[in-house]
Amino acid sequence: MPTRKLRMGMIGGSSEAFIGAVHRKAAALDGEIELVCGAFSSDPRKSRATGEALYLNPHRVYRTYAEMIEKERNLPGDQRMDFVSIVTPNHVHADPAKMALENGFHVIIDKPLAFSAAEARALQKVVEKTGLLLGLTHTYTGYPMVKEARHQIAQGKIGKVRKIYVEYHQGWLTNFIEETNKQASWRTDPARSGAGGAIGDIGTHAANLAEYMSGLSITEVNADLNIVVKGRKLDDDSALLLRFNKGATGVLTATQIAAGEENNLNIRIYGEKGAVIWRQEEPNSLLVRVYGQPNELYRAGWAYLSDAARLNTRTPWGHPEGYLEAFANIYLAFGRAVRDFKPGKKLNTARYDFPDVNDGVRGMAFIETVIRSAKSSRKWTKLKI
Amino acid sequence: MPTRKLRMGMIGGSSEAFIGAVHRKAAALDGEIELVCGAFSSDPRKSRATGEALYLNPHRVYRTYAEMIEKERNLPGDQRMDFVSIVTPNHVHADPAKMALENGFHVIIDKPLAFSAAEARALQKVVEKTGLLLGLTHTYTGYPMVKEARHQIAQGKIGKVRKIYVEYHQGWLTNFIEETNKQASWRTDPARSGAGGAIGDIGTHAANLAEYMSGLSITEVNADLNIVVKGRKLDDDSALLLRFNKGATGVLTATQIAAGEENNLNIRIYGEKGAVIWRQEEPNSLLVRVYGQPNELYRAGWAYLSDAARLNTRTPWGHPEGYLEAFANIYLAFGRAVRDFKPGKKLNTARYDFPDVNDGVRGMAFIETVIRSAKSSRKWTKLKI
Amino acid sequence: MPTRKLRMGMIGGSSEAFIGAVHRKAAALDGEIELVCGAFSSDPRKSRATGEALYLNPHRVYRTYAEMIEKERNLPGDQRMDFVSIVTPNHVHADPAKMALENGFHVIIDKPLAFSAAEARALQKVVEKTGLLLGLTHTYTGYPMVKEARHQIAQGKIGKVRKIYVEYHQGWLTNFIEETNKQASWRTDPARSGAGGAIGDIGTHAANLAEYMSGLSITEVNADLNIVVKGRKLDDDSALLLRFNKGATGVLTATQIAAGEENNLNIRIYGEKGAVIWRQEEPNSLLVRVYGQPNELYRAGWAYLSDAARLNTRTPWGHPEGYLEAFANIYLAFGRAVRDFKPGKKLNTARYDFPDVNDGVRGMAFIETVIRSAKSSRKWTKLKI
Amino acid sequence: MPTRKLRMGMIGGSSEAFIGAVHRKAAALDGEIELVCGAFSSDPRKSRATGEALYLNPHRVYRTYAEMIEKERNLPGDQRMDFVSIVTPNHVHADPAKMALENGFHVIIDKPLAFSAAEARALQKVVEKTGLLLGLTHTYTGYPMVKEARHQIAQGKIGKVRKIYVEYHQGWLTNFIEETNKQASWRTDPARSGAGGAIGDIGTHAANLAEYMSGLSITEVNADLNIVVKGRKLDDDSALLLRFNKGATGVLTATQIAAGEENNLNIRIYGEKGAVIWRQEEPNSLLVRVYGQPNELYRAGWAYLSDAARLNTRTPWGHPEGYLEAFANIYLAFGRAVRDFKPGKKLNTARYDFPDVNDGVRGMAFIETVIRSAKSSRKWTKLKI
Repeated sequence: MPTRKLRMGMIGGSSEAFIGAVHRKAAALDGEIELVCGAFSSDPRKSRATGEALYLNPHRVYRTYAEMIEKERNLPGDQRMDFVSIVTPNHVHADPAKMALENGFHVIIDKPLAFSAAEARALQKVVEKTGLLLGLTHTYTGYPMVKEARHQIAQGKIGKVRKIYVEYHQGWLTNFIEETNKQASWRTDPARSGAGGAIGDIGTHAANLAEYMSGLSITEVNADLNIVVKGRKLDDDSALLLRFNKGATGVLTATQIAAGEENNLNIRIYGEKGAVIWRQEEPNSLLVRVYGQPNELYRAGWAYLSDAARLNTRTPWGHPEGYLEAFANIYLAFGRAVRDFKPGKKLNTARYDFPDVNDGVRGMAFIETVIRSAKSSRKWTKLKI
Repeated sequence: MPTRKLRMGMIGGSSEAFIGAVHRKAAALDGEIELVCGAFSSDPRKSRATGEALYLNPHRVYRTYAEMIEKERNLPGDQRMDFVSIVTPNHVHADPAKMALENGFHVIIDKPLAFSAAEARALQKVVEKTGLLLGLTHTYTGYPMVKEARHQIAQGKIGKVRKIYVEYHQGWLTNFIEETNKQASWRTDPARSGAGGAIGDIGTHAANLAEYMSGLSITEVNADLNIVVKGRKLDDDSALLLRFNKGATGVLTATQIAAGEENNLNIRIYGEKGAVIWRQEEPNSLLVRVYGQPNELYRAGWAYLSDAARLNTRTPWGHPEGYLEAFANIYLAFGRAVRDFKPGKKLNTARYDFPDVNDGVRGMAFIETVIRSAKSSRKWTKLKI
Repeated sequence: MPTRKLRMGMIGGSSEAFIGAVHRKAAALDGEIELVCGAFSSDPRKSRATGEALYLNPHRVYRTYAEMIEKERNLPGDQRMDFVSIVTPNHVHADPAKMALENGFHVIIDKPLAFSAAEARALQKVVEKTGLLLGLTHTYTGYPMVKEARHQIAQGKIGKVRKIYVEYHQGWLTNFIEETNKQASWRTDPARSGAGGAIGDIGTHAANLAEYMSGLSITEVNADLNIVVKGRKLDDDSALLLRFNKGATGVLTATQIAAGEENNLNIRIYGEKGAVIWRQEEPNSLLVRVYGQPNELYRAGWAYLSDAARLNTRTPWGHPEGYLEAFANIYLAFGRAVRDFKPGKKLNTARYDFPDVNDGVRGMAFIETVIRSAKSSRKWTKLKI
Repeated sequence: MPTRKLRMGMIGGSSEAFIGAVHRKAAALDGEIELVCGAFSSDPRKSRATGEALYLNPHRVYRTYAEMIEKERNLPGDQRMDFVSIVTPNHVHADPAKMALENGFHVIIDKPLAFSAAEARALQKVVEKTGLLLGLTHTYTGYPMVKEARHQIAQGKIGKVRKIYVEYHQGWLTNFIEETNKQASWRTDPARSGAGGAIGDIGTHAANLAEYMSGLSITEVNADLNIVVKGRKLDDDSALLLRFNKGATGVLTATQIAAGEENNLNIRIYGEKGAVIWRQEEPNSLLVRVYGQPNELYRAGWAYLSDAARLNTRTPWGHPEGYLEAFANIYLAFGRAVRDFKPGKKLNTARYDFPDVNDGVRGMAFIETVIRSAKSSRKWTKLKI
């Protein structure tokens, strides 16, 4: 690939949306990617206004994603976008992704991967068939100290894992705000969000983080899903007992009615010798406890960290990096893969470590298994992919 | 009662034991109680040696608790002990308590109340019959900021309670230490500890704290009990989904294999408007979050706290009080009740707020219900007292 | 100004430098500014290599800043850069800034403003004469919770200010690394850094933060400057007693030999009624203490914050923003001023709140006063601008 | 000495006083000491009422300390008090201490040692002449993690000490409360407190802690003393630059007008290799930072701690101990010395580690030197003992 910025097209993400702007900033931060085109909204006026606010060439602000994919495909190679970023509500993930892939564009997509596990598996097949890249923005695995924790566990620092506690507690759905808040509106609507509410929106992040950090896989769930706020259509609160492979057990709680909580994703993994503890709201610290020894507090930016952790920081110790930088790390890794892409080539080192379609399929299977478990009077329900 | 220190006799608590010394320091701290006699061990030499180390009159160091109760009963009123403190392993709680009560002595007893729910209920009947006082050292409810949290919830600060997360995580049973550690030896032995391991030793504290602070009652449990360390005879790890009355749900985890954890009891209660959050390891702070407002951090010792909180501190703000002070608060409240005792008189204000036989019966029923749930393939098991 | 990204040229900031990359990421984050040209190094090969790595048009990668300013001035208006970012060592600040201004370009410049107070005052005159914009990246005032603290103090939340403690503690110069570390090499070299070591590099940040947040001005200093590490040429450790106007006093410590510290800038301001407390390493929290009331913990992203704080966040509560975002906030405000610039027009609302040449002159006077005080046996030395 | 509790007499500490009750609880906690007599107030009615509230034998509640010392001296050895605890305001320290010593009683005394340095030196001579014990309750050196820090520094963990920051920040004198608050009344009164206000009351604690932990001695001070609150008679705010022997420098700030602060004593000591950091308000943690390595967090109660730290804890890890326990540690060490006392015998191991008359003399010299420095226009004033 020539020495130039990667060119990104965006589907969804009009000025009103939250996550579109996040993707754009994450993509822009490191100067490796430029936004060149978009179909930002199903409302053409909104799409156009968003394009203007982003200083885009009006000719490359499209009315629909189908138009964008088609027209961009026909542009000369020195103008054409390199990949598509999909930031629409969940029910508009799979179709544009499929179309982009089938027209030769790599895809990066906001989580969860699709509207249903069936859709996700179908998309997985398209990825396999086209051989192209599909990235999934499970943001939280982009944090350097998450990489460090994963590395230390893999190296045996805490011994064989026994117990995992993972929590994702928010309070923004404490009240019934569906009618006034655009985010709340679609995220609690089964027609746009899918079968899961909190469990889909944030429970999947928690499950993904637990599996990524521990290197284990969830095998069974014992789930309690609640609709706490009157009038809500999807679960806004969940609590799960978990079984992992290799004998570990765990607890996952994901709730959006924890009044006063912000974006409290945190994880504690206990092994035979010690523990790793990480909190998203103070992401630059990693607490490692080894039984019988002083606790160790690892901090982002130091040379003593693993390669994977150091690859994902931009500034020296004590210069806090946060959510946008973690997000940008996923774009960086995905972007490296786009640059170095060759059909059939394995890109599986830390430089290319981003969540992919398989993570997305697992996530959708997780959501559907949890819902099945919640409806069952049996304690345990197996998670099958 | 004359103006003098209360006189305490102790059953159990030889020099080797952990909790006996804690009770003695807690009782001594405020200068209201003096230890006058004891039957510290089933081994008379140990009992005698303990008595010497405590500077007791050798005539009042007894070989058995039965001897102690009998001889003390026959002492003149200006020498006789006023109450008995029972700090033996669980299988030696009910019998001495019953005997003491039936011989006219009030009793304070380490938790859990008894070896089984049946024993606990029988003891409850003795308390009712004799009309005497029975205190139970659920230490953690003695902390002033626990009182404050209870007060604020009762006053409606966080609105109707929706969700309770309570954790009690320790790591001291990470390894198999049953053969070298006296504490581990009896606490993991079904013949001395009862049917519950971690769930009995610390799970009961967590359940008691959740109920005390929230004002709610656990009605159903969905339990996972594990023996994680090979060779251990009782559960060393537990995770429970809970239902409370009035529609709240919760999660309780109690584990003793969380390598690196110390004595991490913590609780977070979420209501319709906000949350209270408390951690035993930093007990002098109480975090109150109200949705849409700055968080409030309450600190022990200030005049802005409730009467109940202020009654349970000895020093001004910023002079940390801890575990022994919380323990001493229970002795203070129990001691006030002993001083002010009159048959039939209600002593139910904050001055006399200590856990009693009814808490103990609930605790034993909780343990047995959890064990039943853990053995069941049904999700939910009702908790009946 | 037409609806397009602002065009930035950069002086200094070759690939090896730390702060150049920070400026570029900060400028890029929000999609408002694009880097179009640069003179990145006095070594043309390095400059060229940097330009390539940044995907710049090679024709706009210049050998010297003089060449850049001249050639860019002659480009048509639809290509020419809008402003210059100067990120060279301190001894190469004033000259390119002066030349850029005199050729009609706005300037943003890394702190400290210049090599000496005399240079700074001369530059101030150029700014006044040309009427153009000069921004100074005192990064830390870009944090939203610093804005919030300033707002609350201005509103009287803590009453009249009595005492200010401000610290900037780093440990990276714990050892003599001048010969192996490029940063250390120039920052400890009087020929490139100026007369101040730690006091210039970080002490000026601390002083600027204290004045910005409190609204007060330092009037006298009582300084102790030390060279702790053998062989070093400039102070690496400082401690100052301060007097402010309106009767407040303070303490400022800035050290680079606090082994184990990272980038620990923190400030505590006490007034007649309470205090505000902020730490750069956990920048999204602001602790406000009011005497006799529960502490208040303000968190970035909430609607309850001041306009100035909210204007400087991109993500909702609980999505941590950090150093790069604070830096980007200064570029955003400066960029708004560039867009809305009209000769003589006042741009003095929160939207245009960035440190300027006057802050820079104060900073240089501060450094020189501290050095004078350190050499004096008198306690107090007046700070004159 | 026979196997029995030590017998303590108390001078000062009527029911209204704060510190008297603290001393009594600290002495009582471990069951090693019993209060047998007292002269609690210069008002005989208050003294009598206090004695009653403490359940003392009325015959041993005295009208004056002189009476107490004389009568107790004449009691038979199996009743007579073993030592005197002096908890009066500063102007009534030296005389009763001298009288007690000269009548054969060991003495423990609240800090500061005396009303003036001259008084302190005179008392030092009495101690030397009588050969008896004098303990001084610099409480904060009783904390186990302070002992641990001292141990680690002595062992070279952080290398040669370069910089010490010690702070003691309180807010309780934010307002003029002299007329309504008994504590404030005498502590701000030069006739009862001595020449120092905050510097005497809490600055001495900070100086003592810095010297104890570092093993260094303050040699010069550069002091700023302020009376911030209108109408106050003694300094309520201080800031000092310090020089220590062996080339270290430091900063000490002690203030009582930091509105919102509680009892925030904290210390950070930096050496050539790393740092130790301790805060009184969370006393069971000690943060150790070693340059280039993960931070280490030491926690009270673990076997990995030094003997000195372990000797000063009563409970296992995670059971927080606080201010009263630290105080009690000083009584324990002093009590061991009383038990093992023989004229001329050295008692200088960790078991007998309590502040003594020499610490008291240093403290008084420190206060007077600071006051002299504050009045001087010269920067540095030497501290001479």
